[in-house]
Amino acid sequence: METAVYLIPVTLGDTSIEQVLPSYNKEVILGIKYFIVENLRSARRFLKKVEQSIDIESLTFYELNQHTDRNNIDRYLDPIKQGFSVGIISEAGCPAVADPGADVVAIAQRKGIKVVPLVGPSSIIMSVMASGFNGQSFAFHGYLPIDEGKKIARLKQLESRVYSEDQTQLFIETPYRNGKMMKTLLSTLRPQTRVCLAANITCADENIKTRTVTEWRKMIPQNASDEQVKKYIPQVPAIFLIYK
Amino acid sequence: METAVYLIPVTLGDTSIEQVLPSYNKEVILGIKYFIVENLRSARRFLKKVEQSIDIESLTFYELNQHTDRNNIDRYLDPIKQGFSVGIISEAGCPAVADPGADVVAIAQRKGIKVVPLVGPSSIIMSVMASGFNGQSFAFHGYLPIDEGKKIARLKQLESRVYSEDQTQLFIETPYRNGKMMKTLLSTLRPQTRVCLAANITCADENIKTRTVTEWRKMIPQNASDEQVKKYIPQVPAIFLIYK
Repeated sequence: METAVYLIPVTLGDTSIEQVLPSYNKEVILGIKYFIVENLRSARRFLKKVEQSIDIESLTFYELNQHTDRNNIDRYLDPIKQGFSVGIISEAGCPAVADPGADVVAIAQRKGIKVVPLVGPSSIIMSVMASGFNGQSFAFHGYLPIDEGKKIARLKQLESRVYSEDQTQLFIETPYRNGKMMKTLLSTLRPQTRVCLAANITCADENIKTRTVTEWRKMIPQNASDEQVKKYIPQVPAIFLIYK
Repeated sequence: METAVYLIPVTLGDTSIEQVLPSYNKEVILGIKYFIVENLRSARRFLKKVEQSIDIESLTFYELNQHTDRNNIDRYLDPIKQGFSVGIISEAGCPAVADPGADVVAIAQRKGIKVVPLVGPSSIIMSVMASGFNGQSFAFHGYLPIDEGKKIARLKQLESRVYSEDQTQLFIETPYRNGKMMKTLLSTLRPQTRVCLAANITCADENIKTRTVTEWRKMIPQNASDEQVKKYIPQVPAIFLIYK
C-alpha cells in the first residue's frame, strides 16, 4: 500500500458497512495506524464495525474539529515522513467535503503528499442522481442563513440561478428545522419550481421525493402547525434540492 | 427487494468491482431483470464483471442515449407496474449525474415511483475530497464552451465566484484537450488561484494534484508545445477544480 493520506468515508446513519462501502476500503483501513478523526468515539465505533478484531489500542488518533487549533495540525501528517499512511475519518459520509478534514488535505497537497480518496456514500451526489434534476450543472451551498429574511433572499437568488443558468441548487438544514425550511420554500419559490427532499439517504427509511411547489403545497397545508408538518417532513438528516 | 428504479454506478476505467462498489450493489443487480443502459455492450460487460455466471439472455435492455427518442422513454418504466424493478446503468461512474439517465428518473419521480441511488465512484465528489478545497460550497459545470473566447470569459466568471462566494468551481474536458485547457487556465487565472487536476480517479495511475497557478506555470513552460504539455497533463479522464 502506497504511503499517502487516505480519505475514508463512513456510513450515513445506522447502515451496514457492506451496503455503502467497497470491501477494498477495509483493506486500506487495516493497513493504517494513524487516523485524523472528527470525533474519537464515533471513529473507534466505526473501525470496530469494519473489523471486530481490530486492536484500537495500537492505533494513534488525532482529533480535528472546531476546537482544534488550526496552527497545530501540520504535525498530524508527520507519520508520512516515516513512511506511515494517515487516514482521515469524518462524522458521516465523505471526509473533507463538509467538515474540517479539508484543512489537512490542503496542507498535504501543499507539501506534495499523495492524497487518495476512497469511495463511500455522499448524500450530495446520491440526491442529485435520484432527484431527476440537472446533473450536468449543480451547486451545493451547505447551510443557508438562519435569519428568515436573509434565508428568503438567498433562496430567491438560488432559484433565479435555476432558471438563468439551468443549474440544480442543493443545501442542507439541521434536522429539527426541516419542516420550517420546507414551509419557507413553499411560500417563497415559484409554483412550477420543483423541490426534491432527500431524507435519510442509504438508511432503511430512505425517502427521496421530487414534486413541484404546487404539489408540495397540496400535501402540506399552508397553515399546518410545526407538529403537523412533522408528519410530512421528518426530522432526520436530509438534503434539499431545487430545479425547474 | 422493494420494487423501484435503482441507480447503479459502474467502475471508472479499468478498476476492479471490489475497489469501488459495495457488495450490496451486486445483490441488488442480481435481483433486476430490466435495465436502462447508455451503451448495450459496456453494460453487458459490466454485468459479467459483477457476476460471471449471470444469464445475460434472460435480461431485457432498453438503450437510452443521444439517439433515443425522448417521447418514447416512458415505457421503459412499464416493468414497475408488474412489480419488477428497473436498473439504470451509465457509461462511467454514477448514472443520472452527467448522462441521459436523469430524464428517466424525472419521469419516475413524476409518476411517484420509488427511486433508489446506490453508492459508487463519483469523480466529482472524490475530487472535491482530495483537492483540499472548500467542500461546504462547490459548483460543478460540466463542459465549458469550446470557443476559446467564450471559454476564457466563462473561466473569469467562475474565478470571480471563487473569491466573491468562497465557492469551489469544477468542470471537465475531453481527455485529448486536457493540456490545452490547462494552458488556457494558466494564462487566464490569477497567479495565487489554486488549480487541482484530478486524473484517472480510482485507477492505478490516479493523480490528484493541487498547485497555485504560479506553481503550475513553473512546471509547464508557457511556450510548451502540445506534445510537451502531454508529459505533465495526461490525456485521460480528468476533472479540473479551481479555488482560492
